[in-house]
Amino acid sequence: MDLALHVRQAAEAARAAARLLASTSGEARNAALEAMACALEAEAAGILSANAEDHASASAAAGLSAASLNRLKLDAGKLAEMVAGVRAVAALPDPLGRVRLHRRLDEGLDLIQLTCPLGVLGVVFESRPDALVQIGALALKSGNAVLLKGGAEARRTNAALAAAIHRGLEAEPAIPVAALQLLEGREAVEAMLDLNGLVDLIIPRGSNALVRHIQSRTKIPVLGHADGICHIYLDRAADPAMAVALVLDSKVQYPAACNAVESVLIHAEAAPRLLPALVEALTAAGVELRACERCRALLPSLAPATDADWDTEYGDLILSMRIVDDMDAAIAHIHAHGSGHTECIVTDDIVTAERFLREVDAAGVYHNASTRFADGYRYGFGAEVGISTGKLHARGPVGLEGLVTTKYVLRGHGQKVSDYTGAGARRFRHEDLPD
Amino acid sequence: MDLALHVRQAAEAARAAARLLASTSGEARNAALEAMACALEAEAAGILSANAEDHASASAAAGLSAASLNRLKLDAGKLAEMVAGVRAVAALPDPLGRVRLHRRLDEGLDLIQLTCPLGVLGVVFESRPDALVQIGALALKSGNAVLLKGGAEARRTNAALAAAIHRGLEAEPAIPVAALQLLEGREAVEAMLDLNGLVDLIIPRGSNALVRHIQSRTKIPVLGHADGICHIYLDRAADPAMAVALVLDSKVQYPAACNAVESVLIHAEAAPRLLPALVEALTAAGVELRACERCRALLPSLAPATDADWDTEYGDLILSMRIVDDMDAAIAHIHAHGSGHTECIVTDDIVTAERFLREVDAAGVYHNASTRFADGYRYGFGAEVGISTGKLHARGPVGLEGLVTTKYVLRGHGQKVSDYTGAGARRFRHEDLPD
Repeated sequence: MDLALHVRQAAEAARAAARLLASTSGEARNAALEAMACALEAEAAGILSANAEDHASASAAAGLSAASLNRLKLDAGKLAEMVAGVRAVAALPDPLGRVRLHRRLDEGLDLIQLTCPLGVLGVVFESRPDALVQIGALALKSGNAVLLKGGAEARRTNAALAAAIHRGLEAEPAIPVAALQLLEGREAVEAMLDLNGLVDLIIPRGSNALVRHIQSRTKIPVLGHADGICHIYLDRAADPAMAVALVLDSKVQYPAACNAVESVLIHAEAAPRLLPALVEALTAAGVELRACERCRALLPSLAPATDADWDTEYGDLILSMRIVDDMDAAIAHIHAHGSGHTECIVTDDIVTAERFLREVDAAGVYHNASTRFADGYRYGFGAEVGISTGKLHARGPVGLEGLVTTKYVLRGHGQKVSDYTGAGARRFRHEDLPD
Repeated sequence: MDLALHVRQAAEAARAAARLLASTSGEARNAALEAMACALEAEAAGILSANAEDHASASAAAGLSAASLNRLKLDAGKLAEMVAGVRAVAALPDPLGRVRLHRRLDEGLDLIQLTCPLGVLGVVFESRPDALVQIGALALKSGNAVLLKGGAEARRTNAALAAAIHRGLEAEPAIPVAALQLLEGREAVEAMLDLNGLVDLIIPRGSNALVRHIQSRTKIPVLGHADGICHIYLDRAADPAMAVALVLDSKVQYPAACNAVESVLIHAEAAPRLLPALVEALTAAGVELRACERCRALLPSLAPATDADWDTEYGDLILSMRIVDDMDAAIAHIHAHGSGHTECIVTDDIVTAERFLREVDAAGVYHNASTRFADGYRYGFGAEVGISTGKLHARGPVGLEGLVTTKYVLRGHGQKVSDYTGAGARRFRHEDLPD
């Protein structure tokens, strides 16, 4: 069969499943998550053996980096963590049916704004097969159907995981099995990206290049971010020990993360005081430094940065450093080169800090804290769907609430708009009621 | 100068203005709105004379419908309403700086999610020049800069309105005049639609064709809806008098509105009881009816509907009618042909009503109320930015909150993520605090 037609039919089946899911109770969805967890446990041996085959093929093909091979690899411990993750999602509060607004427009005419599922999610992920289980669980919890497309190198693992999940869902009659479907082949992604209207939200989980490609290719809203170019600005009034500690943590603690710092901006008056200790600590931690000419005037041994460095997410133990005249120059640099992810100021001057927090336009603005805190779990969301640098719908780390929309429910007794129009008309009460 | 470059420079100036606006107080923005209102009053004569010239040219050119000419026409009364509208926007609560979440991650590490402006809005409107003033006021109130492009036939009026607003803004030093800019020419719209990254949200105000064109042309998020194909389902247990009254109000009260009903679906068992009175009342009100074959079997004098009727927003005194076997068939019709705007059930059976409200996927789901209630003012928002049939960011009538986003502000004392990682690590408190 034609692949585009096949993907469309899968999306239509997912849409039909989503209509049913939207009416399920939180209890039914949690029971399905528990059934999914049990099935993954029951079929652990088959999943691990499929994964061993994937890993052997990928190792033999030699196209994948050691890091990618490591992300692909499952063992009993990782599988147990995935199952625990499913149960943790089940334990979260139900994101559906929450009352955002309850307003009496008039006697016997009550308006309620309720959370409800988006509908159909399209998820594209790369080598890490745990994304399938995690996003599958989040989708089910929030009453959404989901089309999943994983990496070719994890094909057998993903098929085994999806088959186990399906067997779990089959045990729950309220939950349609078509709510979770696995697509195969790169062309399937392209076909899915064309289904604006059938797919409500695309969630890419993978490299910046993957995200950028998807964003450029589709009219469907995309949740996520292509780049994480985060800055730390060391103000004139920065505490030297804190400056070193926060830059180190933000760079070294997990350099591949999107919330790792890529550029440090240093107030010109503070640079002679801050730079030597900073360079010493970073170098000792194995960080490669690329510095502006003003830094190099202070410490000539530093390697020079090029213009491209200010726009680069290294995702590695590399850091660029620039001396700026003042905070306005730092903010201008951040707005010119940042990706609107997470931006930090280190200073003991509270007035300066508050101006930075107010003026910088980013999903996260931090004072005296590591940029690495930008994370759904650290924010206490219990789950993370992704981190959005877009400004619409959700911005910053996104929990389950990023997978829901709302609808307005109006319950009346035959009220007409003409009753509220013209001379002698009834007047609206617009009285807000407790949930 | 090259037009695309001109529009880009305008957008860059708007972006710079938006950065300043984001830090203004609610008082400063309200003072600017009052200055804007006063300037419109002071320059009323010039505005009305520019409008008279526009109206005369448009009448002479004879390309515009009588309705469009009427929308173009300003008089002292309409201008006074526009000014009153600006003051009403000033009187609304400040949408900025609202605390959506306040969570203590740990002692001395406080996370706050705050509302803040989107940045730069792009507004494209057709003949109605009051859109310029209304959206200009909403943008300013919410701290957003705005690029406005009106219809060619209102060119002089729009220029006079924008000039008056600028003179008002000049009186307020905190508010940059570049926060509101008027673009000219159809090509300027096309150039603006390419500025993804510089323009944060497009708001079209005009025909379905305009909205559809803009949606297809841009990667920038678009707030609004192309179609308003709303249904009323008359259930088996519908009260006949209420059914007639609600269909009449939903169709006749203002047929050009997007929330007017276009198709009525009637339960087969109720049709013999409901249809004759309904047809009589609608015909008496001058509504042209287009009916399915099952309706025509009951009332052969009815004109036949074609397949295209089920997908048509008439925006006029025309209504299609269809008999369905049951509510499932009605819901299937609504999902196949509706635009996700506003869908209503008329029934005295509360269980059936609740199932309809739960299962129908639309921005508004109504029980026993006119579809015409779907409106920001009737919902008590005090202002309406538009009605969105998209599911992301805002759905249904959108008030000022549709023009804001949020940012996470994290205030720490040097906390590092490594402190919270590994054996013996600190644990997060995740304690929610009152606003």
